[in-house]
Amino acid sequence: MLRIALEQARAGYAEGGVPIGAALFGPDGGLLGRGRNRRVQDDDPSVHGETAAFRDAGRQRSYRGTTMATTLSPCWYCSGLILQFGIPRVVVGETRTFEGRHAWLAEHGVEVIVLDDHDCVDLMSAFIKERPDLWNEDIGVDD
Amino acid sequence: MLRIALEQARAGYAEGGVPIGAALFGPDGGLLGRGRNRRVQDDDPSVHGETAAFRDAGRQRSYRGTTMATTLSPCWYCSGLILQFGIPRVVVGETRTFEGRHAWLAEHGVEVIVLDDHDCVDLMSAFIKERPDLWNEDIGVDD
Repeated sequence: MLRIALEQARAGYAEGGVPIGAALFGPDGGLLGRGRNRRVQDDDPSVHGETAAFRDAGRQRSYRGTTMATTLSPCWYCSGLILQFGIPRVVVGETRTFEGRHAWLAEHGVEVIVLDDHDCVDLMSAFIKERPDLWNEDIGVDD
Repeated sequence: MLRIALEQARAGYAEGGVPIGAALFGPDGGLLGRGRNRRVQDDDPSVHGETAAFRDAGRQRSYRGTTMATTLSPCWYCSGLILQFGIPRVVVGETRTFEGRHAWLAEHGVEVIVLDDHDCVDLMSAFIKERPDLWNEDIGVDD
């Protein structure tokens, strides 16, 4: 699951975007949707990796049994999405480069699996070093 | 501010959509962006009123001093958006038909103004009565 999210993140990096990818899987493990942050590509600040994957999955009557895989610990915006729609499981690539709200999700009953994946860490570390301005813009950090 | 959000909600109702609208205003009170829930119109579950207004405002380097007006108490998804991007003030049309996370936002330091507007209540009440299935889908209630 993380591999598909990481492919999205890498594609985003190659496009000059914020390299965070995500994918949503059904109860049977089948891919429902995938996507990546599109702030730069579409000039759209509302599309984070997780919201892109959620959108790509289309309208669903239920998220029971689904799993969201994401390369990075989800921010408040994406954590709110996960909680509101009752996505019960989240696979997180890494939490080292950004302390998102995976612990808050776990407190609210979401099953959270942190993989501490070095490919995810390396990708985000390179991006944050290269484009701190863009990264701060994406997470609402106002210098 | 609420009037602009309500215009969006009414337009959504006329389109057969979920009638929730929102608008984002700058520190000077000028309109930055507005939008409405587009689940039905665009077949896109990721576009809530608040996220549509946020998108319409385009990329912003800072949300300092901004105000989000919304016809309805924001759900976790939209509350997460508001908190992540540091939108400091939220004007809420009503909280009667849906107990969203306006209180949680206030606990996290967001200035929350609840107007208890009867036009907003009437519009959502009519919609929920007519389309309970669509409303449940929009807030992730899985029967």
